[in-house]
Amino acid sequence: MDIGRLTDRLGGLAFGGDYNPEQWDAEVWKQDDELMRRAHVNLATVGVFSWALMEPEEGRYDFGWLDAHMDRLHAAGVAVDLATPTASPPPWFTLAHPDALPVGPDRVRLVHGSRDTYCVVAPAYRLAARRIAAALAERYGDHPALALWHVHNEYVSLCHCDHAAAAFRVWLRNRHGSLDALNAAWETAFWSQRYTSWEQILPPRKSQWHRNPGQALDYSRFWSDETLAAYREQRDAIRAHSDRPVTTNLMLPGYQNLDLWAFAREVDVVTVNHYPTTPGIGAAAHAAFDADRARSFAGGAPWLLMESGTNTVYAGGRVLAKEPGDILRHSLSHIARGSEGALFFQWRQSKAGAEQWHSSMVPHAGPDSRTFREVTATGEAVARLGELAGSTVRAEVAVLHDSDAWWAMKVDGLPSSELDYLPAVQRAHRALWDAGTTVDFAHPEHDLSRYKVVIAPALFLLTDAGAENLRRYVEGGGTLLVQYFSGLVDERLHARLGGYPAAPLREALGIRVEEHRPLRQGEELALSDGSTAGSWSESLRTEGAEALAAYTHGMLAGSPAVTRHGFGSGRGWYLSTRIDDAGYTALVGRLLAEAGVAPGLPGLPGGVETVTRHGQDGRSWHVLINHGSEAVPLPQPAHDLITDGLLEQLPAGGCAVLRAF
Amino acid sequence: MDIGRLTDRLGGLAFGGDYNPEQWDAEVWKQDDELMRRAHVNLATVGVFSWALMEPEEGRYDFGWLDAHMDRLHAAGVAVDLATPTASPPPWFTLAHPDALPVGPDRVRLVHGSRDTYCVVAPAYRLAARRIAAALAERYGDHPALALWHVHNEYVSLCHCDHAAAAFRVWLRNRHGSLDALNAAWETAFWSQRYTSWEQILPPRKSQWHRNPGQALDYSRFWSDETLAAYREQRDAIRAHSDRPVTTNLMLPGYQNLDLWAFAREVDVVTVNHYPTTPGIGAAAHAAFDADRARSFAGGAPWLLMESGTNTVYAGGRVLAKEPGDILRHSLSHIARGSEGALFFQWRQSKAGAEQWHSSMVPHAGPDSRTFREVTATGEAVARLGELAGSTVRAEVAVLHDSDAWWAMKVDGLPSSELDYLPAVQRAHRALWDAGTTVDFAHPEHDLSRYKVVIAPALFLLTDAGAENLRRYVEGGGTLLVQYFSGLVDERLHARLGGYPAAPLREALGIRVEEHRPLRQGEELALSDGSTAGSWSESLRTEGAEALAAYTHGMLAGSPAVTRHGFGSGRGWYLSTRIDDAGYTALVGRLLAEAGVAPGLPGLPGGVETVTRHGQDGRSWHVLINHGSEAVPLPQPAHDLITDGLLEQLPAGGCAVLRAF
Amino acid sequence: MDIGRLTDRLGGLAFGGDYNPEQWDAEVWKQDDELMRRAHVNLATVGVFSWALMEPEEGRYDFGWLDAHMDRLHAAGVAVDLATPTASPPPWFTLAHPDALPVGPDRVRLVHGSRDTYCVVAPAYRLAARRIAAALAERYGDHPALALWHVHNEYVSLCHCDHAAAAFRVWLRNRHGSLDALNAAWETAFWSQRYTSWEQILPPRKSQWHRNPGQALDYSRFWSDETLAAYREQRDAIRAHSDRPVTTNLMLPGYQNLDLWAFAREVDVVTVNHYPTTPGIGAAAHAAFDADRARSFAGGAPWLLMESGTNTVYAGGRVLAKEPGDILRHSLSHIARGSEGALFFQWRQSKAGAEQWHSSMVPHAGPDSRTFREVTATGEAVARLGELAGSTVRAEVAVLHDSDAWWAMKVDGLPSSELDYLPAVQRAHRALWDAGTTVDFAHPEHDLSRYKVVIAPALFLLTDAGAENLRRYVEGGGTLLVQYFSGLVDERLHARLGGYPAAPLREALGIRVEEHRPLRQGEELALSDGSTAGSWSESLRTEGAEALAAYTHGMLAGSPAVTRHGFGSGRGWYLSTRIDDAGYTALVGRLLAEAGVAPGLPGLPGGVETVTRHGQDGRSWHVLINHGSEAVPLPQPAHDLITDGLLEQLPAGGCAVLRAF
Repeated sequence: MDIGRLTDRLGGLAFGGDYNPEQWDAEVWKQDDELMRRAHVNLATVGVFSWALMEPEEGRYDFGWLDAHMDRLHAAGVAVDLATPTASPPPWFTLAHPDALPVGPDRVRLVHGSRDTYCVVAPAYRLAARRIAAALAERYGDHPALALWHVHNEYVSLCHCDHAAAAFRVWLRNRHGSLDALNAAWETAFWSQRYTSWEQILPPRKSQWHRNPGQALDYSRFWSDETLAAYREQRDAIRAHSDRPVTTNLMLPGYQNLDLWAFAREVDVVTVNHYPTTPGIGAAAHAAFDADRARSFAGGAPWLLMESGTNTVYAGGRVLAKEPGDILRHSLSHIARGSEGALFFQWRQSKAGAEQWHSSMVPHAGPDSRTFREVTATGEAVARLGELAGSTVRAEVAVLHDSDAWWAMKVDGLPSSELDYLPAVQRAHRALWDAGTTVDFAHPEHDLSRYKVVIAPALFLLTDAGAENLRRYVEGGGTLLVQYFSGLVDERLHARLGGYPAAPLREALGIRVEEHRPLRQGEELALSDGSTAGSWSESLRTEGAEALAAYTHGMLAGSPAVTRHGFGSGRGWYLSTRIDDAGYTALVGRLLAEAGVAPGLPGLPGGVETVTRHGQDGRSWHVLINHGSEAVPLPQPAHDLITDGLLEQLPAGGCAVLRAF
Repeated sequence: MDIGRLTDRLGGLAFGGDYNPEQWDAEVWKQDDELMRRAHVNLATVGVFSWALMEPEEGRYDFGWLDAHMDRLHAAGVAVDLATPTASPPPWFTLAHPDALPVGPDRVRLVHGSRDTYCVVAPAYRLAARRIAAALAERYGDHPALALWHVHNEYVSLCHCDHAAAAFRVWLRNRHGSLDALNAAWETAFWSQRYTSWEQILPPRKSQWHRNPGQALDYSRFWSDETLAAYREQRDAIRAHSDRPVTTNLMLPGYQNLDLWAFAREVDVVTVNHYPTTPGIGAAAHAAFDADRARSFAGGAPWLLMESGTNTVYAGGRVLAKEPGDILRHSLSHIARGSEGALFFQWRQSKAGAEQWHSSMVPHAGPDSRTFREVTATGEAVARLGELAGSTVRAEVAVLHDSDAWWAMKVDGLPSSELDYLPAVQRAHRALWDAGTTVDFAHPEHDLSRYKVVIAPALFLLTDAGAENLRRYVEGGGTLLVQYFSGLVDERLHARLGGYPAAPLREALGIRVEEHRPLRQGEELALSDGSTAGSWSESLRTEGAEALAAYTHGMLAGSPAVTRHGFGSGRGWYLSTRIDDAGYTALVGRLLAEAGVAPGLPGLPGGVETVTRHGQDGRSWHVLINHGSEAVPLPQPAHDLITDGLLEQLPAGGCAVLRAF
Repeated sequence: MDIGRLTDRLGGLAFGGDYNPEQWDAEVWKQDDELMRRAHVNLATVGVFSWALMEPEEGRYDFGWLDAHMDRLHAAGVAVDLATPTASPPPWFTLAHPDALPVGPDRVRLVHGSRDTYCVVAPAYRLAARRIAAALAERYGDHPALALWHVHNEYVSLCHCDHAAAAFRVWLRNRHGSLDALNAAWETAFWSQRYTSWEQILPPRKSQWHRNPGQALDYSRFWSDETLAAYREQRDAIRAHSDRPVTTNLMLPGYQNLDLWAFAREVDVVTVNHYPTTPGIGAAAHAAFDADRARSFAGGAPWLLMESGTNTVYAGGRVLAKEPGDILRHSLSHIARGSEGALFFQWRQSKAGAEQWHSSMVPHAGPDSRTFREVTATGEAVARLGELAGSTVRAEVAVLHDSDAWWAMKVDGLPSSELDYLPAVQRAHRALWDAGTTVDFAHPEHDLSRYKVVIAPALFLLTDAGAENLRRYVEGGGTLLVQYFSGLVDERLHARLGGYPAAPLREALGIRVEEHRPLRQGEELALSDGSTAGSWSESLRTEGAEALAAYTHGMLAGSPAVTRHGFGSGRGWYLSTRIDDAGYTALVGRLLAEAGVAPGLPGLPGGVETVTRHGQDGRSWHVLINHGSEAVPLPQPAHDLITDGLLEQLPAGGCAVLRAF
């Protein structure tokens, strides 16, 4: 496990962040050394935006300045996560290779002046990226400061240019084999779209009305594959010169349109960025959501939080401030869920440039600031958690997540504009988080037998294999909750005929959905169990299932809304509408109770978040975060690593990492 | 009357829909034959999206597959409405003729991948369209299954390319005769827009601020004329080989920017599509609105509902569900108003493609579904209405509708963004529909003398001839209600000077509008009659008219808001603001009462919609739709064609077609 | 003072407006002569949109029609403000010089068909503009009707074309000297944007994410400078042939993105356009705001209101109507603040074209209309104010205004989308206007010692010199209120480190801002003084200042929100949040009271607006506008110029111009 090589190298968990010394001068560098020491920084990400300095003109490299920083950091006891700078090609590159600039669906070609102005498919870009990666690896592959390779930064570019079109055709040929198969998959008989030569196929550029959904879904898949190929090329160029672990900092779904199950298989260490989008308790839930996703993509192995904001939340066009104490709480939320440390973007707040108001460890105001004091306290706490390295997390509950289902819900022409994949997934996680449950994410075709409960929210696209896997899971004793708008189409986006969802899954649920009834914006329907439904409803018929709640008014009056079906040794639940928060929480609670899932640690009240990390050697640690406004006595005193002492009660807003009691 | 040839051929009214067998296989075709029989389908529209199959490469036709379907349908007793597939050129066409792809006002050229990716003006497109139409007519012109030709589908493309610019110049030369006349019409003295050669004139592409309103209005007219020319070319190509009636399925104003008074003159049978945009009772009113418009455009002759959705309403980004029973109710609403049947898009719900969630007669769930059961019941009912064929509808009230007025209100720079033509027309119809009145639509220059009441909502543009026609109508005894923002400009968009509206009309109304006072969003003014005004107000002076209600507050306090003027043998009413629904309903009710227009059938309560069709032979039929939630006893028992028995009361939500009592 | 030459020429104040006789015929011209006489019009702006008539083809001029109008107006006693027509190039120009059409950031090139379809940088446009200006000056430079030259009209075009790019590079070279300096200023080390040749630099065209803020700010500065250069070229071409004063009608910030401090230095007479954007009392406050800005840009000298709408307010997509009496009230509000007259756009309402619904002096309804009657009454009043010519206005309070600060707040990536420069400036003015105070605007680097109170709202960008100037102002005895989001960056947009705002200013305020805490939309915080804060908050520490109000809840509970600091002989106040209207009014009131600023005229109630003009000869006049709904007795009877009699009380809505009592 390469993450182990990293924590061994660091002698514990990682703490630090992106470091861009090229924005500052020697006097500041000197202060940096001192402040990093005070903040217990042991890992710095260097070089992310330095292409223009590393290669000031095409083919001419200048690494002198970087040598100096590598040596300085090493001398200061800070290991380096060295980035290839390929997320931001310099102006000379885009002028020399205008065909490598990204093009929108409206065929407007973007220019430099921001970042990410490249098409990941363009041959000139790919060549330039491989070359700079190789040059860096050759020079620094064995540098004593080097702990990790950081390929690129947040792969996010999307392009519709002719290079992309050509590559898409190759990809399609591989996927579909023949034009006939492609025409069948995309159902080009509709709207007279039959392709008679590969050259006729384009990216989903701006057209008159809805684009072909199959084309759009395949383009998402293609783009993810092509981006992964670009990553692999850099990784392999690095590996030719260096044996240090290689990663790329992933943007979790919602930030980035990539299949992270696939990316996680190609990196030596899974590293992710986390930027919440709600303030307050929502940010805490979001941290848990992102951390649980990161661990799940990593297959349960330890991973690393590569970037987060110290004290800000981007929400609704604003840079809101986190609450005092959040830096530690959010860092521990990630560590509790398997992160081997906590890193931030960025060490020093830029004095100018496009992100000069982005958060940092050392803000404009300088070290005499609440932010730097909290950063220092967090660094101190993390430094005491070294014994957690390598330990893992166990969950009894899983939420299904599939990139295909996600992308499929981005096509034109869905029956309601309120349908949205990721919010449905996040809502399921939130209800479980509120219930104190530790959650994994799983792919619909994974072996699910280890879980007591599985929830499938908005699993619009479900393959035959996935549907059969879910049926088998219930049959084998699992408790499965399938939510509305699930199992409607196969991997080609072809609708399931004869009633939704896909037949083998219907068997496990004992229901048949006949018709969708999207609700109007703000429209609400009462259910017989007292909850309220919104956004969406379905007309369904039970075929063996028991109705637990029914619609009480309107067209669906008397029709089942929530059902449960004993099937094999398990139970299949179905929820046909978006019920209100209280109703959903109650439903999830009932599901957990019936399946025998106990919440968190016994003896602690609801507002205390608890996750347990289990070591290889049988030891374990409880990470506790008190979100309440009152101190909470522990069920029994325990040794807390943060204070390195016996803890009897957890103060309001406080955190602890207890050796298991 | 060609519609008579169609109903004769069908032996009664039409029932069926778009049929796209190329999306399915032989097993499904076999089931289709059986299900169509069960549903009493007697007419299927074939070929709408089949260009890519009919002409797989330029100039090479493949009709074998279509022969088979034509023969099969004929054997199954289903007549064919054969479409030319020109609404959706295949990918090979757009690659061969990139200049025929549509271009937006921002000069972005759209690509294929959707439908309607053509410029209706592009020579290559026009040639290709004529050729495929001729080829189809040559092959199927005498096919025994063939009952109707369906040219194109929903002409909706709009383009701003250089082909369009060139054709626009030719059109302008014909309309205006000289550049001087054009400069005067467009008032190019303003903003230094004087044209000194025809080549300088462009479509209204994206410019710095407001575009010239005259240019924009002329472009709307040009586009409608050019689209009609494209239709005529195909029609004539067909007529050279076939004597069956020819139509194109019209999209009623609101869906499509065409002058349907003109289109209706060029089709053998007026056929229209209907897609409501509100659920519930709004959809019923919308059906009546669309059906009344269709009949009016057809000049009162029978016509045909070519497309509608069985069970869905597109509203606010959602595909809402209609209520149980709506399929029959909406079908009868159209038939009551002169449609010789009811057709749907489409027979089978597409399993994939851009409209896979669009409604159908056989949904994904299959024949074992509410939808198919209701379709079957509706087919059965329609099959029993054969004797209505050829009968017509009579109205005592007309609402004025003019494409020029509509387009004129789409130009840049109107005094309020709340001004909107079609909603004002629809509102007038709705108030009359609520009052149980059968309504015609009429052009402002039509002979109106047959009507007791005429309403002119938002008739912004009114020609000299139109203004004089309205004056004469009142003088001759008519009751005319003119609403705010009417009669402001002539056909060149030149303002009426000396006070609005246009002088001869003012004479009939006995008022002079001096100033407009648009209201702020949400602003309301009280009127002296207890109603509330919003959106708009006007400062007017009576010149003979009597003030029925006045503004009570603000700048207009004491100023007349609603007036009535005895003129000649008639009465001219003026409404200077948008009063609330209750006030508007009351005003329209008063107008009807004073003019002696009695609502619907005597003895029936308000919630029962009633329209009467009158046969050539003196027979007549009352179509009744009970929108209430209680059964309604009939004034006297009558023979109901649907149940083929004596009916004494109409159940809640029920329909009947009674031989006149 | 050239404005004196104008009023001397007119024999008093100016009254009139834009006059476009080319839209009408001889009969109307005759009526115009008569109506202008009735309305006391003595100045008409001619030629603004007449390029196509003046130069019907490139290089061929036709001035015959204009000769006739010049002579006719002269004969009618109306002086002419002659415009160069360069705001609207004719169609022939744009066809001959397509490279001179403006290009958006998305590289879409706009076409003619509106107005302002030129790039102010394009050589062909500049040449054509100079040529037509020279030709006009040559022909009319000594015409007896000519009173003023009106270069162009409302310079507003913005362009991102290659001509603009080339000129931008020249401008940057002049400003920054070297690429190294530019790279440092724009902090191109971030996001790898380092430029290695001038050719790599582009306008801020559409890019992937945020554009570089330094680039964006410099583009705003460049565009303002380049526009000014275009003006100067025309001015100089005119001066070669004519000695009459030259102006261009400025659009005040909010309408136009130019640095008016710089423009005001280059015109012989400052002339401005005024179009309010709120109805009712808001329009009156807006008139005062615009007039105070105009006078301040003019350096306190008399100036001229060149355009305003007689009876309309553009607000929220509507052309709302002003209230009866507003034409006089708004005209006097401008005259009170130094305008040497009142002019309108336009004389006659266009019967057609893009602005046919724009207001006018003679509306569509003709002279028999409220509007024309009010125009006539206003003309009569203005005609009686001749003795005010040349007098000026004195203010004890200034609000700081800086184009750099304004443009700087338009860059991408600010911490809150609710931050907006001009609304903050307008709000400060409004609070002072409500308090009856006469207000100047001043540049942060101006000598401020003449003011008792200075307010700095949202002065985001503040140079070292500006910060020192403000510090010195307080030290010298001034009362300064600095508002949140001020003093954060220097002129290169580089953040102030060590705490905000810029260090020398902090000294005067006795505070240090450590962190920004933008609030969510609609979020409110209570302050200890009973007011409510919204939009924004800051975490600050007093360093000598006294806390006048503190936050009471949330993260900032107990932290100071409003502070006051005695420094030198003055006081520095700081407001860290956007408090509610009542709280802000109270704060400003307290500031004025403590600084000894007395409101308006003693003895008059709050709703009476009062401004005093002071003549060179010691005479002075009080302009009074009663916004209340009750008559107000004057403290003592005084001679009113408008009624030319002794006035004892001012009626509701009434105005007076009193010889000082």
